[in-house]
This record gives sequence, C-alpha cells and structure tokens, in this order.
Amino acid sequence: MHVLVTGAAGMIGQKLVARLVKDGGLNGKPIDRLTLTDVVVSASPAGFSGKVDAAVSDLSAPGEARKALALRPDAIFHLAGVVSGEAETDFEKGYRVNLDGTRALLEAIRKTGDGYRPKLVFTSSIAVFGAPFPETIADDFHLTPLTSYGTQKAVGEMLLADYSRRGFLDGVGLRLPTICVRPGKPNKAASGFFSGIIREPLAGETAVLPVAETVRHTHASPRSAVGFLIRAAGLTREQLGLRINLSMPGVSCTVAEQIAALRRLAGEKTASRIRREADPLVERIVSGWPERFDARRALALGFRAEENFEEIIRIHIEDELEGGIAA
Amino acid sequence: MHVLVTGAAGMIGQKLVARLVKDGGLNGKPIDRLTLTDVVVSASPAGFSGKVDAAVSDLSAPGEARKALALRPDAIFHLAGVVSGEAETDFEKGYRVNLDGTRALLEAIRKTGDGYRPKLVFTSSIAVFGAPFPETIADDFHLTPLTSYGTQKAVGEMLLADYSRRGFLDGVGLRLPTICVRPGKPNKAASGFFSGIIREPLAGETAVLPVAETVRHTHASPRSAVGFLIRAAGLTREQLGLRINLSMPGVSCTVAEQIAALRRLAGEKTASRIRREADPLVERIVSGWPERFDARRALALGFRAEENFEEIIRIHIEDELEGGIAA
Repeated sequence: MHVLVTGAAGMIGQKLVARLVKDGGLNGKPIDRLTLTDVVVSASPAGFSGKVDAAVSDLSAPGEARKALALRPDAIFHLAGVVSGEAETDFEKGYRVNLDGTRALLEAIRKTGDGYRPKLVFTSSIAVFGAPFPETIADDFHLTPLTSYGTQKAVGEMLLADYSRRGFLDGVGLRLPTICVRPGKPNKAASGFFSGIIREPLAGETAVLPVAETVRHTHASPRSAVGFLIRAAGLTREQLGLRINLSMPGVSCTVAEQIAALRRLAGEKTASRIRREADPLVERIVSGWPERFDARRALALGFRAEENFEEIIRIHIEDELEGGIAA
Repeated sequence: MHVLVTGAAGMIGQKLVARLVKDGGLNGKPIDRLTLTDVVVSASPAGFSGKVDAAVSDLSAPGEARKALALRPDAIFHLAGVVSGEAETDFEKGYRVNLDGTRALLEAIRKTGDGYRPKLVFTSSIAVFGAPFPETIADDFHLTPLTSYGTQKAVGEMLLADYSRRGFLDGVGLRLPTICVRPGKPNKAASGFFSGIIREPLAGETAVLPVAETVRHTHASPRSAVGFLIRAAGLTREQLGLRINLSMPGVSCTVAEQIAALRRLAGEKTASRIRREADPLVERIVSGWPERFDARRALALGFRAEENFEEIIRIHIEDELEGGIAA
C-alpha cells in the first residue's frame, strides 16, 4: 500500500503521517511507501521501514500534481491548502492553492487513466456553511459560504463528487470542525484563537480573545481529526453512496464554556491569562460560521469525536505537553 | 445603458435580445449599446437604434472575456454554456466552457478594477440538485448534483456569490427549470424531449418519448425565462442579500399531464404523434433531477411563471406558430 499525503508538513499532516507509521498499515494492508508533499520540507517520519519520498511541491504549479502521482498511490490524503484568514486577505493565492491546486490533483488522477482509481480523502470545512443558520445544521443544509475559503472548499467538494461519480477516483470529503487545541505557533486561520485561549495559558503565556464569550462553535481534537481521516479511507463506495461529502461530529460549546473547562482543569491563574481584545475581521468571519450541526450520517458511518471540551483539553495535555502544564 | 449578452445566439439569448430591443431599456434606463457574444454568429437585432457589437467568441479562450468587457457593460446576461447531455458525454468540453468560461468572465470583471462593478445575471439550473429528494425542494436544500453539468452550474453559483460578496460585481444566479416548449430543432440537452413531445406533434411530426409518462418535472416557457432574466437584472443588492442564487418558479407536472394538456388543446390526432422508446442514459440523467420545488424566495422577489401546462403550450403556439397548428 502506497499512501500520498499533500500538506504533509502541516499540523494535521504530521500527525496523520505519525499515525500511519505507528499503525503500519491502512485498511488492513501494510504501508510500504509514503509520498509526502508540501510547499515546505516534510520531515521524514521516525520508525518507518518503508520507502519515503518527501517533495517540496505546490500542486497548483504546472506538472506538480502529475509528479506526485507518478508512482500511483493507492490512497491520497489531500490536506494541502491555504487557511481561512489568508484566503480572505489574499484572494488570488486562496483560489490558486485551494481551488486550482485541488482541481490539478483531480485532473492528474483522471488523466492517469488506465484503470487508476485511488481513494482520495479531501479535507473540507464547516466554513462551506454560511449564516443565517437553523439552530442545528442538518446534513442536507445548503452550502452558502461567506468566505472565499469556504467557497473554495465547497467547490472542491462539488468537483470531488463529480470525479467520483464519473469513476475517476473514490473520493470522500470531510467537513472538519475547528481543530482544537492546535499545537505550536498561531497560524493565519481566523479560528486560531479557539486554540490560542487554551494553548497559551497552559504554556504560561497570555492569549488574546478577539470575540465575545457567547460565541458558540464546534471543535474536535487533532487526534480526532486524524481518526476521521483514517476512518474515511476505510469507507467503501457502497457505504458512501453519491453524497460523499460529510459533516464531521464535534463538541459544540461557547467560548465561556471553553474557558470554564480550562479553569476546572488548570485553575484560575491559568484561565486569567486570557486578554479580551475585539478584532472586527475575525468577528465578522466567525459570525458567518455555524454553531452546531447534526453529523448524523458521519456518526452512522463510525466517525467519533470527543464528548466534551474538557476531554479536548486533556488530549492536548497528553499529546503535546507530555502531561504537564505551566504553573 | 450598455448590455452584454453571452450565448446571445442561443434560444434564450435571441429572445432576451429581442425583448431588450422591444423594451428599449433595462431597469428604467434606455439601452444605447448591445454587445452580443457566442461561439457562432449572433444575428443583429431588428429595430434597434443603438450600437451593436456582435462577436464570435469563446469566453474560455485566453483574453476573450477581457475583450467582451472592453467597453464596460453595465449589465451582463451570462447565458453561454454547454448543455447537460453534451457536458455529460464530453467531460473536458463541459468543464472548459461551463466552469472555465464562467470563471474567466468573473476574473476579467475583477481585474478590470477601477470601480467597475456590473450587474451579472447568471443562468444556473435545477440540475444543481440531485436525488434523493424530499417531496418539495426548499430554497435551503443542499446542492448534490448528479451530472457534470449540474456540478459546473453549482460551482458557477458558488463563485458568483463569492465575487459578489467581495464587491467585484453584483451577481444573481437563476436556477431555471426546464424551458418548455423550446422552439426549433432538438438540442443535446437531456431534457430536450419535454419540449419535443409538444413541439413535434404540433408541427405534424412524430416525437420520441424516452422516459415513462409518470416522470414529473418542472417547466417554464421561454417567455417566462426571459421575464426571469429581466426581473433579476432589476433586483438590488439589498433585496438579494448574500444568498444570490435563486430557484425559479415553474409548472410541476407529469409527462402524462403534459400529453393530456396537448390532447385538450390540439386533439387526439396530434397527441398520437408521440412514440415511446426508452433511452437509458436520458432516463438515468432525468431520474436524478428534482420533480418540484418551493420557489418561495423567487416568488417573494417578484418572479412569475405560468400557472399550468396548457398555458405553456398556448404561449408556444402564440410565440412560435403564429397561432396556427398542424392538422
């Protein structure tokens, strides 16, 4: 089994690769080759006995997608993309990377022909939905994104479904909730503060909260996100049917509930490291995002997230802080 | 007022241009210039005193969209496209014309810059919806097209909404029901028979019915379609809000009801000119289309179609057959 991961140097990409190496296989078949692409260098995974090709590559550049597919990977995790904040501030880059890059990958698969039909797991986002919303967003709610990022992801979903229907590949698109707690440095995602207000205080640093505490949002841990990707790769065409794009489950809670969970787990001193400072751009983007949704189909297909926000914080402490937190 | 019509040589394009010339204006302003583009020659409209530029142009070819916009049309009716049957049989052509062509037009508008912000009316289709359906499709039902044509139209809707939201243009997308009765020769649209079984018998010729008489579908006359386009051009940004893509109203009826209406208006001899001959490709495509939908938003915004299928046949007889039908 040969697995290609695009965006392999990103946070989810690295965790996915580590999990694939730890599992040693995918869908019950041993993995003997990994191809990792990203616009920056992907680290070679520790402890993997198979062959690794790590390429610095922008899929939207001519010929790059074809190169990534040269050895016909059996399964592809397409994680590469520009995040929401950057896609909103840099219109052309967002469309080039998120739309043209995805389309280039699909086209390169189609043009391979000769019976090649890989499994392709695509990371979409709940940003494909746009306000006003019903209280809970059903699986059949329409896509009316209110950001360029959400638009690009929605277009990716549409293309993935059509290429799957035509038999060029076996696609599955996952609308990830906000991944929380993201480790490492803040990125340009408008949703970054949802992690920052947990991560920074736990590390003894101050975090900025740019929106009101009443903001409600849906979260899943990085560990769950990787679990979603692995689960998706194992779904059959028959299980999915033609509606291959799925909203993933998550924990729906307010910022106030996030902070309360942090206070319970790490104390008042930690929770007091959050500074309120409104940011109109972030407020506007986030106000167009859904608060909670009914991930009925995903749950029926075996996707699982955390039960509450405390569990999400505990996973962050286990996976990133080696169990320890700043005093 | 300068109006650009793409796909101006097509059936709706010709009727729209004739209507614009007859009205002499749009949104209460006189029209002094028309730019007409199509991949074939557009006829110069009779009785128009303003300037007409008719160009043979494929919008998806480099530079063509920019050329069509050189004189900064105030309103654009973007009708150009490959029909559903052809987009299904010729994958590359469908994506090139319907997706790349539309995107090229949007990009050319954006890159004009300098405050240029035209009204852009885009013809989408009910093919953006895909089975299984609820009994009636609500305005907030998700887009899960089951054809490449429907996918391309859905992507066009998404892009139009994002370009509008970003302030590059004032877009409005109309999901047209099947236009019936189409005059002239059959085209490659999978929906062509809905017109054929009325048009050919009225002209004394035999028509082929490739699906069962129980098939239910939604129709509007060419006259209504032109009315929708004119109405759309008159809507303000405030009336539309951010959900700029609208399902148009129409007459929902079965093929049996269509034939009964034909029999009532033109007699048994005419109705007997329909030959049943199943076509699996057409059956499959049509089975993925919606039967009826709740065009609540469009109705509230003043869009109007016919009340019943007899009215649709009567309009065909008035507009195309000068009131006369074959014995």
